[in-house]
Amino acid sequence: MFAGHADYARLEERARRALEPAVFDFYAGGSGDETTLAASAEAWRRVSLRPHVLRDVSSVDTRVRLLGREVPAPVCVAPMGYQTLAHPEGELAMARGARRAGALFTMSSRSSRRIEEVAAEAGPWWFQAYVMRDRGLTRDLVRRAADAGAAALVLTGDTPYLGRRRRDRDPGLIPDDMFGVNLGPGFDRASAEQAADVTYDDIAWLREISGLPLVVKGVLRGDDARACAAAGAAGVWVSNHGGRQLDGAVTTAEALPEVAGAVRDDAVEVYADGGIRTGVDVLRALALGARAVFVGRPALWCLATGGEDAVADGLAELCGGLAHAMGLAGVTSVTRIDRGLCAFENTRHNVET
Amino acid sequence: MFAGHADYARLEERARRALEPAVFDFYAGGSGDETTLAASAEAWRRVSLRPHVLRDVSSVDTRVRLLGREVPAPVCVAPMGYQTLAHPEGELAMARGARRAGALFTMSSRSSRRIEEVAAEAGPWWFQAYVMRDRGLTRDLVRRAADAGAAALVLTGDTPYLGRRRRDRDPGLIPDDMFGVNLGPGFDRASAEQAADVTYDDIAWLREISGLPLVVKGVLRGDDARACAAAGAAGVWVSNHGGRQLDGAVTTAEALPEVAGAVRDDAVEVYADGGIRTGVDVLRALALGARAVFVGRPALWCLATGGEDAVADGLAELCGGLAHAMGLAGVTSVTRIDRGLCAFENTRHNVET
Amino acid sequence: MFAGHADYARLEERARRALEPAVFDFYAGGSGDETTLAASAEAWRRVSLRPHVLRDVSSVDTRVRLLGREVPAPVCVAPMGYQTLAHPEGELAMARGARRAGALFTMSSRSSRRIEEVAAEAGPWWFQAYVMRDRGLTRDLVRRAADAGAAALVLTGDTPYLGRRRRDRDPGLIPDDMFGVNLGPGFDRASAEQAADVTYDDIAWLREISGLPLVVKGVLRGDDARACAAAGAAGVWVSNHGGRQLDGAVTTAEALPEVAGAVRDDAVEVYADGGIRTGVDVLRALALGARAVFVGRPALWCLATGGEDAVADGLAELCGGLAHAMGLAGVTSVTRIDRGLCAFENTRHNVET
Amino acid sequence: MFAGHADYARLEERARRALEPAVFDFYAGGSGDETTLAASAEAWRRVSLRPHVLRDVSSVDTRVRLLGREVPAPVCVAPMGYQTLAHPEGELAMARGARRAGALFTMSSRSSRRIEEVAAEAGPWWFQAYVMRDRGLTRDLVRRAADAGAAALVLTGDTPYLGRRRRDRDPGLIPDDMFGVNLGPGFDRASAEQAADVTYDDIAWLREISGLPLVVKGVLRGDDARACAAAGAAGVWVSNHGGRQLDGAVTTAEALPEVAGAVRDDAVEVYADGGIRTGVDVLRALALGARAVFVGRPALWCLATGGEDAVADGLAELCGGLAHAMGLAGVTSVTRIDRGLCAFENTRHNVET
Ligand SMILES: Cc1cc2nc3c(=O)[nH]c(=O)nc-3n(C[C@H](O)[C@H](O)[C@H](O)COP(=O)(O)O)c2cc1C
Ligand SMILES: Cc1cc2nc3c(=O)[nH]c(=O)nc-3n(C[C@H](O)[C@H](O)[C@H](O)COP(=O)(O)O)c2cc1C
Ligand SMILES: Cc1cc2nc3c(=O)[nH]c(=O)nc-3n(C[C@H](O)[C@H](O)[C@H](O)COP(=O)(O)O)c2cc1C
Ligand SMILES: Cc1cc2nc3c(=O)[nH]c(=O)nc-3n(C[C@H](O)[C@H](O)[C@H](O)COP(=O)(O)O)c2cc1C
Repeated sequence: MFAGHADYARLEERARRALEPAVFDFYAGGSGDETTLAASAEAWRRVSLRPHVLRDVSSVDTRVRLLGREVPAPVCVAPMGYQTLAHPEGELAMARGARRAGALFTMSSRSSRRIEEVAAEAGPWWFQAYVMRDRGLTRDLVRRAADAGAAALVLTGDTPYLGRRRRDRDPGLIPDDMFGVNLGPGFDRASAEQAADVTYDDIAWLREISGLPLVVKGVLRGDDARACAAAGAAGVWVSNHGGRQLDGAVTTAEALPEVAGAVRDDAVEVYADGGIRTGVDVLRALALGARAVFVGRPALWCLATGGEDAVADGLAELCGGLAHAMGLAGVTSVTRIDRGLCAFENTRHNVET
Repeated sequence: MFAGHADYARLEERARRALEPAVFDFYAGGSGDETTLAASAEAWRRVSLRPHVLRDVSSVDTRVRLLGREVPAPVCVAPMGYQTLAHPEGELAMARGARRAGALFTMSSRSSRRIEEVAAEAGPWWFQAYVMRDRGLTRDLVRRAADAGAAALVLTGDTPYLGRRRRDRDPGLIPDDMFGVNLGPGFDRASAEQAADVTYDDIAWLREISGLPLVVKGVLRGDDARACAAAGAAGVWVSNHGGRQLDGAVTTAEALPEVAGAVRDDAVEVYADGGIRTGVDVLRALALGARAVFVGRPALWCLATGGEDAVADGLAELCGGLAHAMGLAGVTSVTRIDRGLCAFENTRHNVET
Repeated sequence: MFAGHADYARLEERARRALEPAVFDFYAGGSGDETTLAASAEAWRRVSLRPHVLRDVSSVDTRVRLLGREVPAPVCVAPMGYQTLAHPEGELAMARGARRAGALFTMSSRSSRRIEEVAAEAGPWWFQAYVMRDRGLTRDLVRRAADAGAAALVLTGDTPYLGRRRRDRDPGLIPDDMFGVNLGPGFDRASAEQAADVTYDDIAWLREISGLPLVVKGVLRGDDARACAAAGAAGVWVSNHGGRQLDGAVTTAEALPEVAGAVRDDAVEVYADGGIRTGVDVLRALALGARAVFVGRPALWCLATGGEDAVADGLAELCGGLAHAMGLAGVTSVTRIDRGLCAFENTRHNVET
Repeated sequence: MFAGHADYARLEERARRALEPAVFDFYAGGSGDETTLAASAEAWRRVSLRPHVLRDVSSVDTRVRLLGREVPAPVCVAPMGYQTLAHPEGELAMARGARRAGALFTMSSRSSRRIEEVAAEAGPWWFQAYVMRDRGLTRDLVRRAADAGAAALVLTGDTPYLGRRRRDRDPGLIPDDMFGVNLGPGFDRASAEQAADVTYDDIAWLREISGLPLVVKGVLRGDDARACAAAGAAGVWVSNHGGRQLDGAVTTAEALPEVAGAVRDDAVEVYADGGIRTGVDVLRALALGARAVFVGRPALWCLATGGEDAVADGLAELCGGLAHAMGLAGVTSVTRIDRGLCAFENTRHNVET
């Protein structure tokens, strides 16, 4: 299913037909002119690979340790809200499919199924936290996630408020009962919106109340990555939120080498997401410095078109595509993928002060 | 209205339908092959932003001081002649709309309404001066503007004569009474044309006769910017006249960093215009070194499609878009926007001597 | 036939009409999104030539020594399997056509005609070896090739397993009797597949059992080229297997200067293939560091459309085009073509560790 | 007519309709895939201009001395053979039109009107020499040109034989009597073809037999330019023969800065041609180091569509366009145009040895 971007396009098209137009657009769309959205997928393709010949690749090992826990492959599921819009079982089916494929699952703060219910079906999973205007709501969610077995917290740092998404035309798309499924009864919707005053100090707070290692999602700069490390983060996740926040933001393929370089000497893991569609894309991201990648929409389109089974198959295929690409590139272990494996046409230069 | 370039395209299309073809073409067109016109809008989109995460952006401050006077946001209206072609109230409606949005207004030497009449309705405003062949005409205009309350003079330096604009097909588009509305009765049209012998010496002359600080508009090079500073200018305005003068001229996005760098140590303010269409574009220009931006056609299309109200709404939306983009980029004050906020694909290099 | 890429496109179109769709697609296709396939031909066109004027080019000498043996021109035929799919005489016709044009012929391990039969008709030829899972099969083939007069062995190093080729839809395209024409009776197909554990050590093994000089095909990096030289290879062949293996792999035009530079001081010859379609392309490759080039599909389309005659004509035309281009570029001998003959838009940069 | 490339396209289209298809194609076409032809016009547009403001441009001086003789503007007519195919009066009309516009005219060795007849109608003119296989033919032509008043000789160095031009389908396009109009009666066509053994030594020979200063046309490299200077040339003319010789050759916009830089300290003048279509293009070429430019097809299309009058008008318009562009760029004399006037996106780099 993911041997090329053409396969992805076909899958997306099938999802488009399977979903309500408003739902498809909510899922597929980005902010502003969708410049960042389009550029992000395209940017990986500008990364050429420099394969080795004559290596014994009869066995290829894609296993990797993420925050100390081994997973079979560095391909994980990104947090995405409201998955019951795509499939009646929503996050349940996604978590089950991920577990079957051996892929780490990230549960969104905006899950449309109850945390505990999803956790019961999931393999290893992380919980994505939004700091809400009422920090008490976040504290409760985070503690419930920790109790339910989340292995780490993911603090999304790029969403003080939502990006301006042209395709989001139906303000009633997310009814109150879906929005509030993990909030107490009689919750106040405004209090549960993202807080705009989240800072590096919240890293310590979240670690303390959850007892979990914390990953900051949305990092696009080296200096921010270092600031995360200094504030106690265990990981930084290079993301532009799938092109849904600041339109015009740099692509993750362009930001990744800078971020990875900045924290090379820190005990911080680096992940990346955004526009990753094939096993070759995964290899590109690993070569540019990511320890693992997360996929959003590819998993969502699987969910929409075939539920748990399609999720399991799609993720397995991505993992298989990675192993195959590694073999053709002459590398037998993800730990041995180095930057020299790629040649990158990055035509943008940071403007010096 | 300005969340993306697509919105701008839609607005322009509405203006096209609202206006006489000859008027629309006069407004929309550029010189030669319109290379510079097209490239200028496109160039901003090649500037990627490098947003910060985890900053408290619950309050974002867009206020800026322009030549000592504070305005709510660094989004201003560029001088454009003959606005009654777009709307019966012309400059009156534009000035009122700008005032309501808190945007600085620049009145053109070619205003089709009387200076004093417009000034009476305007908030803070600047007067754009062409040095005319008969310098006495310019002296009179400039003094009237100063008396009417202009806060600064803008000397347009890129128009010794008009560019060759393919779309300007109707030589009678500007009748004598419109051309001469601010000239004495029985004026001689040729004498009021732009003089071709304007030099840096005219900066001192204009400052002297008006008593106002002076900004040079049309600067595209660092050496010229320094020459303006040395000659007593208080500001330089990076502009290629909306692609209407030298076709093939560098885009303002490309010229801006050079100009801003050249006068970094001078007490000179730097502004920019040309192809700025969204709040994200404004942020890009500020990051590349502008203290404020000016918009031409966007304001004109608002005027043509909805008069004063649309101008007010359009400008407010641009300002709101800037604040929103700043928040998503993690910057809370325009004074804290630095060059590091962008990554720029500038593939052109100055050719060394 | 090969004065421009347009001629090639026309030839390909004729072949498309002459062949079964499944055969054409098997020949024409590449792996994944065919990114590398498309980029490889395109990359040569980004190499500009810097011709000399006022040189005596009344006689142009294209002769070159390949592993000690002189050939009239540095244009050779790449190994391609199963040529009877294109023409009943298959490799026989290809070898005869190459001989008539004075072009070195490379016989594939997957030849669909018997080695000895083809060898009897060939001019100077090399044998391309796949190391098969059952190394005994390879030993037999290689010895038979040596006995039949192969002047060198080509070890294809980029195919531990096949790339994922979207266009290969018919799994039965290669029937057992075609696959096994050079294997013993009652052969086991799986044992004859490519081994995934081929390493630099196999270079010595193959040299020993064949007594022939060895060339490694598929090299795309300078470090690998040096490793080949250290392991006893007499040549390295820059190739991405015609875009059929790792999709996303660097183009050969981009890899060639790196490889040639890396072994400049070794006694190793450098060849290149992939997307070479005209005499000017050959000149480009020589200027970027190749001693000779190999063509795949161009020869195949000739075979498909006109058998031996078309192969002879097509190759002669490529050689003639090279001589003509050399004359217009002011160089009279392939040994005098240097890197300064081209200007290269290589926008990709290796990512430093 | 030449305010933009769009005007040129329109003119070309009119010529296409006015001419026999075979003639139009012979004139319009280039060699191979016409890559160099297309790239050459396009390359100038990638040169951005960096205009000055606030310069007194009330008078702009385009005069320039070419080999010691002043011409009103640095816009000249390139040598083109067989102009009677375009217009019954052929070179006569071209020479008259050039004279009326004050433009230097270059007469081709392949003139289809007699040298003396054309010379009688021409203003200042140069004679373009091909060294023919029978050098005696060239000696005669060159002496006749000198006697008829040619001010310089232009030795075309890029044509040891003709490029492969796909569009040249009619081998009988140039009948013997047109080919031989300036050769003796009973001439041998083969002897009059270009010699392939022309070298730098021919520079001295041609100077000696003609007594005229000599310009080498077709130079695309700095080292060749220096070699020309060392061999006694008075000028080098950067040209790729309008894309008609080596397809894949570098564009003249890319070669010009290198050539101009190489002979900066020599007493050698530098000219350029190829794809120059507007006054702005002329300015670009002057800024990149040319002392004057030559136009080919633009003059030819004028000739074809309106004879002498159109040639005069077209050339005058190009000169006027240059003056206008200079004024808008803030330069008042061609001698004061420096490299700093442009910013160049040259993405190709010479490959180092
Ligand atoms: C429909 C949708 C909902 C999302 N919801 C969240 C969310 O709740 N929290 C979050 O941190 N990111 C969210 N994201 C962003 C994803 O986690 C991820 O960064 C992005 O989708 C990766 O790009 P891709 O879709 O191109 O793979 C969402 C993305 C989509 C498409
Ligand atoms: C219709 C029109 C009239 C203009 N008139 C003037 C003018 O009178 N004086 C001046 O300095 N600039 C004039 N300009 C240029 C603008 O001030 C400004 O530089 C340009 O429009 C900015 O580009 P934009 O339209 O892409 O925002 C004019 C521009 C337009 C489109
Ligand atoms: C149909 C086909 C079959 C091929 N078979 C082989 C093969 O058996 N062994 C091998 O080393 N390369 C094989 N190749 C790769 C070619 O040797 C060569 O690297 C490639 O075709 C060169 O690119 P070009 O086709 O663009 O000229 C094959 C290529 C094609 C198109
Ligand atoms: C129809 C045609 C005939 C030409 N004949 C000659 C010629 O006889 N001698 C010569 O040196 N160049 C010749 N040229 C090349 C021109 O002198 C000149 O280099 C080229 O046309 C410049 O490019 P342009 O046509 O884009 O302006 C010819 C070009 C054309 C188009």
